Amino acid sequence: MFEMKVGIDAINYYVPKIYLPIESLANARGIEYAKLNKGLGLEKMALPDVNEDVATMAANAVLRLIASSEIHPKSIGRIYLGTESALDAAKPTASYVAGIVEGKLASKFGERALKNCDVVDLTFACIGAVDALENAMDWVRADENRQAIVVAADLAKYDLASTGEYTQGAGAVAVLVKANPRILAFNKTIGVAMMSVSDFYKPRRTYSKTELLHSAARLLGTDLSKEDGEQLLKSGEHAFWNALSDEIEIHKDEPVFDGPYSNDCYQQRITEALENFNEKEKINVLVRWSKMIFHLPYAFQGRRMITANWVEWMRESGRSNELDAELNALGLSDADDATKVKALAKSALFKSFVDAQIAQGELASAQIGNMYTASIFMSLLSMLVNANTSDEDLASKNIGFFAYGSGSKSKVLEAEVQANWKTAIGKIDLFADLAQRQPISFEEYEALHNKTLKTPLANTGIQLEKVGEEGVTLGYRYYA
Amino acid sequence: MFEMKVGIDAINYYVPKIYLPIESLANARGIEYAKLNKGLGLEKMALPDVNEDVATMAANAVLRLIASSEIHPKSIGRIYLGTESALDAAKPTASYVAGIVEGKLASKFGERALKNCDVVDLTFACIGAVDALENAMDWVRADENRQAIVVAADLAKYDLASTGEYTQGAGAVAVLVKANPRILAFNKTIGVAMMSVSDFYKPRRTYSKTELLHSAARLLGTDLSKEDGEQLLKSGEHAFWNALSDEIEIHKDEPVFDGPYSNDCYQQRITEALENFNEKEKINVLVRWSKMIFHLPYAFQGRRMITANWVEWMRESGRSNELDAELNALGLSDADDATKVKALAKSALFKSFVDAQIAQGELASAQIGNMYTASIFMSLLSMLVNANTSDEDLASKNIGFFAYGSGSKSKVLEAEVQANWKTAIGKIDLFADLAQRQPISFEEYEALHNKTLKTPLANTGIQLEKVGEEGVTLGYRYYA
Repeated sequence: MFEMKVGIDAINYYVPKIYLPIESLANARGIEYAKLNKGLGLEKMALPDVNEDVATMAANAVLRLIASSEIHPKSIGRIYLGTESALDAAKPTASYVAGIVEGKLASKFGERALKNCDVVDLTFACIGAVDALENAMDWVRADENRQAIVVAADLAKYDLASTGEYTQGAGAVAVLVKANPRILAFNKTIGVAMMSVSDFYKPRRTYSKTELLHSAARLLGTDLSKEDGEQLLKSGEHAFWNALSDEIEIHKDEPVFDGPYSNDCYQQRITEALENFNEKEKINVLVRWSKMIFHLPYAFQGRRMITANWVEWMRESGRSNELDAELNALGLSDADDATKVKALAKSALFKSFVDAQIAQGELASAQIGNMYTASIFMSLLSMLVNANTSDEDLASKNIGFFAYGSGSKSKVLEAEVQANWKTAIGKIDLFADLAQRQPISFEEYEALHNKTLKTPLANTGIQLEKVGEEGVTLGYRYYA
Repeated sequence: MFEMKVGIDAINYYVPKIYLPIESLANARGIEYAKLNKGLGLEKMALPDVNEDVATMAANAVLRLIASSEIHPKSIGRIYLGTESALDAAKPTASYVAGIVEGKLASKFGERALKNCDVVDLTFACIGAVDALENAMDWVRADENRQAIVVAADLAKYDLASTGEYTQGAGAVAVLVKANPRILAFNKTIGVAMMSVSDFYKPRRTYSKTELLHSAARLLGTDLSKEDGEQLLKSGEHAFWNALSDEIEIHKDEPVFDGPYSNDCYQQRITEALENFNEKEKINVLVRWSKMIFHLPYAFQGRRMITANWVEWMRESGRSNELDAELNALGLSDADDATKVKALAKSALFKSFVDAQIAQGELASAQIGNMYTASIFMSLLSMLVNANTSDEDLASKNIGFFAYGSGSKSKVLEAEVQANWKTAIGKIDLFADLAQRQPISFEEYEALHNKTLKTPLANTGIQLEKVGEEGVTLGYRYYA
């Protein structure tokens, strides 16, 4: 099944130091806390501080990975970033990350330690970093002496009071990809499914400047004729009103999305990708897997999305009698399939499957929230750290991955846990680290969200120092 | 030097049907035409029509590639898009492209012909598509039955009357990547150099909505107190003034850039990437190359940037006497190096080198202008088509590639022309096609640039039909 072993040799992460307790959000929005906590598994929502962004979070994760795996930066041939929170439309956020990392490493390794390192951004909503991982592995397969870093970093931010508000979060995870890895060796077979849809995206919002001036005039209670409006726009000296063309396009970090539709897309794509994987391997691969790792916009997304596939797999595995016993007990023997699946999702049988194969991967998500591209990597780390703490023996066990990116694409991957996985993650004290973060108040959260807060609440590490304000540095980002 | 042969099996392109003659631009801006035409090699500047965007251009190129190479769409495992003109911050433009392509192919190949095709965007200014090519080749190397499409598509748009205005352009090039390719087999060795710099980027421009309302009030000659302004912003019902947070971020297609600095970065990165390539191959690889293909923001960029490397290579090749003869004749034997290089750039010796190895790749650029990521691929096509027309025998000749992306990264690649290259590009009538486009007036150009023009001038092919205006389709793009 596996040729040259290639995969994840080391993993590290960065999560901002501040969080909003989900209970605060539930109280403020009049949502029953149990619905979010018991229903979706949410406890805390990580928030980047005023002076943090995707580049600082990614750089922190990369620096921690380099430090903990004791690799020389010149031996890193690639740093590939998966993100849907890019800071610039042309210059890759990965180049900002490389700049920060080089700066931090200069005293130890000299200037331009990454001079010959290939960096780039990959974008496909929440699945871009999995694409980066796949490509990094192919690149290592072409020369086993190579090693690459794949970093997933994102800010999941939704409109205040929107239905997505409780699925926010932020952070970064970095993995070292090499031959003969200590943690996971991946199967070359990958299942893929893709369909162009509008379930979740981040479009530019277009406004007419002329129309904005007229609406401002109405707000101000002033009459403004069409001709006067045009004249005013030509006459002034304000960069906004004069220097741009009439059509302006606004970027927002907050997406346009349709939650229920996006869940349908997630479910359909992962099912199609699983079918694609199974066709290639000529097996229902669920049989082989001890653990399942999902893209998690919220902690319980994976268990919610996989139920129908699990039912199918149980029937194919000759365990229909167990399912039927559950359904009989509930008087649902003659119900339609959807009703059966819904009932089975609450069964003891499914709960024991979730506890054994999925729940460990949800633990970090409950404490952090949505990390977009980084969610699936954090779910892996969550499972590994919990299994290590519980003295579970994962060596040579197979893990299945369900990756999803809105818009939409899914990939199903398979990996085998390697003998030295415990050594490789031994120093990572994920849950103790997460427990040491600082809660913030709902008012601080709103001010942070609205960008009216200007003073950092906790971050004293890598910082966005300033953004260029004019000329050839307009909008350029400087880090300290 | 080459193991399994992997590279470009087919190539096709799309260039918009309308262009602005550079002479019109020169006249309108008071620039001497000869400076742009003789100095930089510019003749025409391609412009996307009102109803075209990067997705339609890329889809056109992919569809033409599929049609001309007669491949079944289900055999395409990947469509990787390199662009710095993405249409959305989360949903990859590649997914819009796949949607358009599937729609166009449905009548012949059925629905969802790309259901199991992996698509993603790669972003690193003008080099993202070269990164996509490298990754597609590694992916094919891992399984020789795979085939991938790499598409480069961009809109190079600069502010009106800016110093970058004459380096605009647009278009897309798609290549089919497979084992045993008909056109080019690539050397696995790639030279890479990277440094995070601010030579060219596309930042978001940040404004305060409160400040904008006050500046509107000043424009309108109205007094507005701080308190009244805050009150107004809270009270109204306009999506712009009320629904967004105070800080708004504006996207512009036009970059922030520093031309001379960017040239320095280009020159330094390609030199470093060449050194990196040479270290890996233990040779000065220029010796092996019959042709050199560059990223061309304008037609003559490559020849301008390579002069110093050429001088060095001439000296290393034992041809110092030829250089010295030129310098003696000019009385520059004792001049400093920079002066010598500048003088040698005008020498007959250098001109004959340019004519033999570089000029064919500049021909299309002169007719199209800057295509950002697609420029280097179009330069390749330009060279191949011209060589084919001139009955030049390229088979088994080596080609060198100098890719550059601002921000900044360079890659140096090497490929060997394959025996069947003429068959593979035989049907492509690039220059006749470019000659049939429609010139537009300077007034039309300005209206197109400012987006005040609403009626298409020529495009009747794939069209952006509408952009969603509200709710869960706000900003979503629909194509016909």
